[in-house]
Amino acid sequence: MPSSLSRALESYPNRFDPSVLSALPEHLQETIRRRNEVLGPGYALNYREPVEFVSGHGAHLIDRDGNDYLDAYNNVPCVGHAHPRVVEAVSKQMAAVNTNTRYVQESLVDYAERLLATFPEGLSKLSLACSGSEANDLAVRVARYHTGGEGIIVTRWAYHGLTREVASFSPTLGKGSPLGPNVRLIDPPDPRLAAPGSTLAEHMRKQVRDAIDDLERHGYRLAALVTDCAYSSDGIFTDPVGYMTGVVEEVHAAGGVYIADEVQSGFARLGDSMWGFSRHGVVPDIVTMGKPMGNGLPISGVVFRPEVCEEFGRNVRYFNTFAGSSIPVAAGAAVLDVFEEENVQQRVLENGTALRAGLEGITHGSPYVAEVRGSGLYVAVEIVQDPESLEPDRARAEDVINDMRHRRVLISGTAKGNNVLKIRPPLAFTSADVTRFLETFAEVAKDRLQAG
Amino acid sequence: MPSSLSRALESYPNRFDPSVLSALPEHLQETIRRRNEVLGPGYALNYREPVEFVSGHGAHLIDRDGNDYLDAYNNVPCVGHAHPRVVEAVSKQMAAVNTNTRYVQESLVDYAERLLATFPEGLSKLSLACSGSEANDLAVRVARYHTGGEGIIVTRWAYHGLTREVASFSPTLGKGSPLGPNVRLIDPPDPRLAAPGSTLAEHMRKQVRDAIDDLERHGYRLAALVTDCAYSSDGIFTDPVGYMTGVVEEVHAAGGVYIADEVQSGFARLGDSMWGFSRHGVVPDIVTMGKPMGNGLPISGVVFRPEVCEEFGRNVRYFNTFAGSSIPVAAGAAVLDVFEEENVQQRVLENGTALRAGLEGITHGSPYVAEVRGSGLYVAVEIVQDPESLEPDRARAEDVINDMRHRRVLISGTAKGNNVLKIRPPLAFTSADVTRFLETFAEVAKDRLQAG
Repeated sequence: MPSSLSRALESYPNRFDPSVLSALPEHLQETIRRRNEVLGPGYALNYREPVEFVSGHGAHLIDRDGNDYLDAYNNVPCVGHAHPRVVEAVSKQMAAVNTNTRYVQESLVDYAERLLATFPEGLSKLSLACSGSEANDLAVRVARYHTGGEGIIVTRWAYHGLTREVASFSPTLGKGSPLGPNVRLIDPPDPRLAAPGSTLAEHMRKQVRDAIDDLERHGYRLAALVTDCAYSSDGIFTDPVGYMTGVVEEVHAAGGVYIADEVQSGFARLGDSMWGFSRHGVVPDIVTMGKPMGNGLPISGVVFRPEVCEEFGRNVRYFNTFAGSSIPVAAGAAVLDVFEEENVQQRVLENGTALRAGLEGITHGSPYVAEVRGSGLYVAVEIVQDPESLEPDRARAEDVINDMRHRRVLISGTAKGNNVLKIRPPLAFTSADVTRFLETFAEVAKDRLQAG
Repeated sequence: MPSSLSRALESYPNRFDPSVLSALPEHLQETIRRRNEVLGPGYALNYREPVEFVSGHGAHLIDRDGNDYLDAYNNVPCVGHAHPRVVEAVSKQMAAVNTNTRYVQESLVDYAERLLATFPEGLSKLSLACSGSEANDLAVRVARYHTGGEGIIVTRWAYHGLTREVASFSPTLGKGSPLGPNVRLIDPPDPRLAAPGSTLAEHMRKQVRDAIDDLERHGYRLAALVTDCAYSSDGIFTDPVGYMTGVVEEVHAAGGVYIADEVQSGFARLGDSMWGFSRHGVVPDIVTMGKPMGNGLPISGVVFRPEVCEEFGRNVRYFNTFAGSSIPVAAGAAVLDVFEEENVQQRVLENGTALRAGLEGITHGSPYVAEVRGSGLYVAVEIVQDPESLEPDRARAEDVINDMRHRRVLISGTAKGNNVLKIRPPLAFTSADVTRFLETFAEVAKDRLQAG
């Protein structure tokens, strides 16, 4: 690692190293220098040569010189950059009025009904917030209130957000950001970590039970197990499914609740369902969502089983100024419109399957690729030093990421070793985009992923 | 209090009582019934008869039947409902692109420079977030990191936000929402609370010193004093100024930082300056802002002295997905444009002064009005049972608020006794709006505030 990087950014995948500023084009240098002057703590830029865009459409971003980049990374603009349906709905609402939830708004009620209709029975109450962090903060606040417990279990390299509470159970923030004494970590559902002769389901269940025991030994009753249903920062583990049933049984037996963090995995990202938890055949007690929900407008949500939030609701009021206002709700509703009109989930399933198949073909036999995995349009390529040790190869992964960027295809990295390619395009990704992606990836793989 | 109200809403000023649903017009009943079915915990509606709006302009809101309401309450649409400048800027940006802070965006840098230029020297680093709650959460997280302390001092009925951390120092949320063991409460700067022969400055300084002593006695070093510079939920106390110098000295002597929460008081709300703290001749260590910042688009900010956030920035990364993206930044920049073009601060000063003068004239001699106070367009009218005891009269205050609403002027209530009229219009309030407001208020005062 270059020594110029702060501890904050050491563990950050694919970040720009500010010490090489002088190697950049002049205008970029100047903007970044000004940016460094005025921005507060903890900001990072992506890529060895950061990039600026002035317009976008579908999964495409256009820079100042008119170059077209294929965006295979951004999940927020889920129905596509600057999707006209969303632009129109928000512009129209803005020109009319924006009132908050202290006023009656039929559009809020309509939206809540539509969104809740995508959930299984039992998950029937929606609270809105502004960010995934606020959603997870509220979810855990309610879980603590409901259970009377404080213990929280998350996966080893999880990220759930940035409020003080949520950062305390987000180990991916690194050693500079302390975990709470009430937090325990378990492995993500990586089948390779199960002991020989043991199934993934057994491994996961045992870990959760051990974590509960250890919490109780330290005087903490369990409040919640929180999992990102795509395990994004752990390295993206979507399959096999089915291990959650036993895990949730353990959580309930200990008096805790299961919170499914769908900020990354929700809104059809995984292709075969609207929500990641559905793939596992379980119904969580609380579900949180955010990033793609308004295609870029800040909106997030928490869906509860009513019995879980009843006590909190009787005792605590929750007024989130911007959340549930007419403008973000208009954005959220327009996203649902596009999902229906464009049959987004089906497109994700088809193009995701083609993308993974193509990547498997290109990387087949590579000594540096341990695995291509994922579901829908959330795809991981794990880059290792050799296929036996599975030792992470961060440098090679970052070479691939930056070679892709120079060929104008945007991806990034993830996992504790920063060695897993994170391929997570807007859900607007078309089959032509898949083709362009694979052609570019094949070129890069020739340089970086072939034996020798 | 009607027994049908949950503990969550008992202390909530001017809330709708859901048990009287059947007295409402049919369409409203139906929408509220559906709303109650789908919304999560803690939501409240304003007014005995809630209201829905379909459009707005300036300080005016229009209902389904075309009735024009004068909005003398909403601070978020600061430059006016649906201000065309903001609508155009956001619509244009949406149609182009929305990228986050991991990409270079010249517009973000331009905005940060413009915003920071409104601050005194020393306050030179800006972090963006989505809500005032996130801003206060980050501010205190950084304060804890910088000072190594945990103690937090706030005013007795303060509200700073809704994350678990910030709710733990927001006493206005009531007994259902527990304060942290590291939190101490002091009186707001109400000159009537100073002991005879003592000044407000002495009273405030002594309270802060006592709170620090008590924290230390319990093993907590001070992290921060946090004050809303308008003391909105405490009852709105803007004057006299000048007591903060000694208070900040005590905070610094104890190793703590002073956080000015400008979510309510910032952006020229108080008329004589852009930021509430400026009126007191002090420079805080951290300043937070939110509500009016994007005229309704979710955007908030934290401004730091660089030495306060340096250690945090070296160790912790902070990526807030939506915050600092092109869309909210476009809204924030358009608000600053309007501030310049329309000379907003001067308008606030003039119309605020006229509004207070008119209210003083109307309520002069009323046995039920203890005080008209405030600054700029943040005005309080304190309603009491009699002028000697100053016992709060919540029922009378709520009668006034609802009489105003039936005459189509929107205000609400505040303070622990729920007896202070909160008059806080969009900064777009014109002198014609002042006239209409005062005419309506005079009618209501005839019924509710005259002796007899």
